[in-house]
Amino acid sequence: MTDTKDMIAEVCSWIEPDLQKVFPDELSDDITVRASLYSLLAGGKRIRPCFMYQSARMLGMDPDEIKIYAVALEMIHTYSLIHDDLPSMDNDDLRRGMPTCHKKFSEGIAVLAGDNLLNRAYELLFSAKDHKAGAYIAGLAGINGMIGGQSIDIDSEDKKISLERLYELQRKKTGALLEAAICTPCIVAGCPDDIFETMKQISLHIGLAFQIKDDILDVLSNEEELGKSTGKDERDNKQTFVTMLGLEGAKERLDEEISGAYDKISYLKEKGYDTEGFAALTRFMAERTF
Amino acid sequence: MTDTKDMIAEVCSWIEPDLQKVFPDELSDDITVRASLYSLLAGGKRIRPCFMYQSARMLGMDPDEIKIYAVALEMIHTYSLIHDDLPSMDNDDLRRGMPTCHKKFSEGIAVLAGDNLLNRAYELLFSAKDHKAGAYIAGLAGINGMIGGQSIDIDSEDKKISLERLYELQRKKTGALLEAAICTPCIVAGCPDDIFETMKQISLHIGLAFQIKDDILDVLSNEEELGKSTGKDERDNKQTFVTMLGLEGAKERLDEEISGAYDKISYLKEKGYDTEGFAALTRFMAERTF
Repeated sequence: MTDTKDMIAEVCSWIEPDLQKVFPDELSDDITVRASLYSLLAGGKRIRPCFMYQSARMLGMDPDEIKIYAVALEMIHTYSLIHDDLPSMDNDDLRRGMPTCHKKFSEGIAVLAGDNLLNRAYELLFSAKDHKAGAYIAGLAGINGMIGGQSIDIDSEDKKISLERLYELQRKKTGALLEAAICTPCIVAGCPDDIFETMKQISLHIGLAFQIKDDILDVLSNEEELGKSTGKDERDNKQTFVTMLGLEGAKERLDEEISGAYDKISYLKEKGYDTEGFAALTRFMAERTF
Repeated sequence: MTDTKDMIAEVCSWIEPDLQKVFPDELSDDITVRASLYSLLAGGKRIRPCFMYQSARMLGMDPDEIKIYAVALEMIHTYSLIHDDLPSMDNDDLRRGMPTCHKKFSEGIAVLAGDNLLNRAYELLFSAKDHKAGAYIAGLAGINGMIGGQSIDIDSEDKKISLERLYELQRKKTGALLEAAICTPCIVAGCPDDIFETMKQISLHIGLAFQIKDDILDVLSNEEELGKSTGKDERDNKQTFVTMLGLEGAKERLDEEISGAYDKISYLKEKGYDTEGFAALTRFMAERTF
C-alpha cells in the first residue's frame, strides 16, 4: 500500500507540470482558463494517468511516449466532473476536498471551463504523433462511451433500472475512460491483437471494480477522507451496486472483478511482460480508502 | 437575393442528410442523441456550411471533399448555441423559432447534448482524411478562438468594455468559426500562402459584418422573422456594435466590412478564381433580414 502510494506520487509529479502548461501563458488571466486549471490542478488520485503510465511500463515503453495522451485524458475526465457537478446534473458542492468549479466561479463559467478542457484536449490530441490513439480516445469519451453512460444515468433518474442496465451505465460512464487509459499504450505501441484484447478485458474488470469501490466508499467513508460528499447516493435515491447487491454482495462482486483482472494480468506475466507495477495499482484500486 | 436563397437551400439539401446521420441508428432512442439532433436539425441558415461550400467551389474543389468538415463545424456551432442558451449563460427560450434545447428537454440533458455534439465532431474529424484541417478547426473552436470569445463575453457582463475589446470578443466568438468555414478548404486544397492569407482577411471582414448585422437585426427585426428573441441585447444591458456605434454608425461599419471583403474577393477574381457564388453569399450576409 505504501509502495503504491509512492508510485501514485511519482506519476503525479510526472504529469502535473504538463497539466500546468496546457494553456498558453498569455491566457493565464482569462477567467475560463483560470476555472479550467482550478479543477484540473485540484489534485485527485490521477488514476487514469497512473494506469496509462503502468500500462506503458508493462509494455516496455518509455511512459513519456504516451504522456500527451495521459494529459488529454485527464482533461477529458476533469471536464466531465465539472459538468457532472453542475446543479442541473449531480449538484455537488465539493470535489477533491475543494468547492466545485461552479461554486468557486459561476455556473456559466463552469459550463465554459468544461467545454474548454474538452476542446483543448482535442487540440492536444491533434498535435500528438499518433492520430489512431486520438481517434480511439475520442470514441471512448463520446456517446458510445462516457457520454453514453452519463446519458443513461440522467435518463435513469427516478426510474427503476435492472442490474444489467447498471452494468452498461457504469461500463460506459466510468469504464470507458479507464479502458482508454489502459489500452491507449497498446495502440501507440502497435500491440498484437491478443494482447490488446487481454488489456481490454483487464480494463473492463478494473472499470467495474473502480465503480463498485466508489459505491462502497460512498456508504462507508467520510467526507474528510474522500474529499467529496458521501452518503449522497442514498440521499439522491441513486441506484448503485450497493443498493442493488447489498454491501456484502457489492464487496463480493468487487473481489470477483479484481480476481478477473488478476487472471488476465497473470496471462500477460506468463507472456513475459513485467506486470508488477500494474498489478500493484490494481490491488490498490480494491483496497483504497479514498 | 432570390438566387442566394436558392443557393442556401441547395447547400441545406447537400448537408442535411449527413447531419441526420452523425449518430449511429442504434442510438436513436438515447435521450442525449435525441436532444443533440433536435438542435442540430432545427434548421437555421447553415451559414458556415454555405461559406465552406462556396469557398471550396471558388478554389475549384468538389464540395464533397470538404463535406465532413462542414458537418463537424455545424456540430461545433450547434453545441455552442445549446450551451450559450442555458439559463446560466444567455438564458434564451427561443432559437431558430423553436424552444431551446434546455426548454424542450432539461438543463442537464442540454449540457450533455452540447458535450455530445462537440465530442462527436472530433470523432468525425479524426475519421476524416486531412488531420491538418481537424487541428485547424480545433484551434479556432477553442480558447484561442470561439471559447476565448465566449470567455471575454461572460467576463464582460456588467462591465464597461472598450470598442477594441468588443472587436476582439466578436472576432473570436463569431469570427473564429466563420474563419474555419472559409479557410478550411484552403487547408484541404493546400493553397499557396498568399491565397490562404487573403481568404483569412476575407473571413475576418465577414465575421465582423455578420455580428454587426446580428446586432442591427436584434434592434430592427421581430421575433417571427428572426426565429429568436429580439430586443434582448438592450434588456440584458449588453454592449453591442449598435450600443457602441449607434444604429447609423453600425450600418456604416457594416458597409466598410463588406467593402473590405469585396476588395479581397476582387483580388481573387483577378487571380482567375470563380468568385461569383462566394460574392453573392457575402452580399446576402449584409442584406439579410433574418
